[in-house]
Amino acid sequence: MGVVESTLQRREDAPKQGDEGAPEAWIAFEPAAAGALDGLRVGDEVLLLTWLDRADRSVLRVHPRGDLSRPLAGVFTTRSADRPNPVGLHQVRILAVDGTRVRVDRLEALHGTPVIDVKPVLGAVEER
Amino acid sequence: MGVVESTLQRREDAPKQGDEGAPEAWIAFEPAAAGALDGLRVGDEVLLLTWLDRADRSVLRVHPRGDLSRPLAGVFTTRSADRPNPVGLHQVRILAVDGTRVRVDRLEALHGTPVIDVKPVLGAVEER
Repeated sequence: MGVVESTLQRREDAPKQGDEGAPEAWIAFEPAAAGALDGLRVGDEVLLLTWLDRADRSVLRVHPRGDLSRPLAGVFTTRSADRPNPVGLHQVRILAVDGTRVRVDRLEALHGTPVIDVKPVLGAVEER
Repeated sequence: MGVVESTLQRREDAPKQGDEGAPEAWIAFEPAAAGALDGLRVGDEVLLLTWLDRADRSVLRVHPRGDLSRPLAGVFTTRSADRPNPVGLHQVRILAVDGTRVRVDRLEALHGTPVIDVKPVLGAVEER
């Protein structure tokens, strides 16, 4: 569907979460996805789902946040990128929409990461 | 990784979101996923990621919530199950853990839906 265009090139340079110092980034969607983008507006808070293609899918337990002083924990209790199905979940705000290119704030995903879906942040039931 | 065991069998019986009347459900994980589950506890709020295998992946625009009085909108502005990459995102609370079986509250996914990932709900930066 899309791909991240970011200044973040290496995993060791990426913050652990978007709100821990991540840069702005572009998402370049395929032209075929244009219809799905219809109605996305500057200022919208959305969830980006990515496929963390540089993750190690064999990992089941990690030291949370890579801190060896913390005991090993199942990856389902952490946001580790290394996990059997490495889908990344990123809450971002839309800064610009230019055709099928969308600029977002603070995204910790690396340059080249595939974007597989975009979802609105859910409000109260009566606003859906 | 896992599969939903639910009383919800048909799409027309499923509520649109978990907090709109969805039932409790079991998630039966593969034995190979046991390590990833390590540390999940009753009471935890988690995000389940599912693969909505009965979705129509060719859909790019929908009437939000199936309401024909609402104009067509890109699926990225909606939580429609029909979308190019139909990953479901469900915030649930863990009610029980029995080996690699996990019971959760209010899940709108249908019986047999694959579960691909589990993530903790993120708290404040200093609690991560």
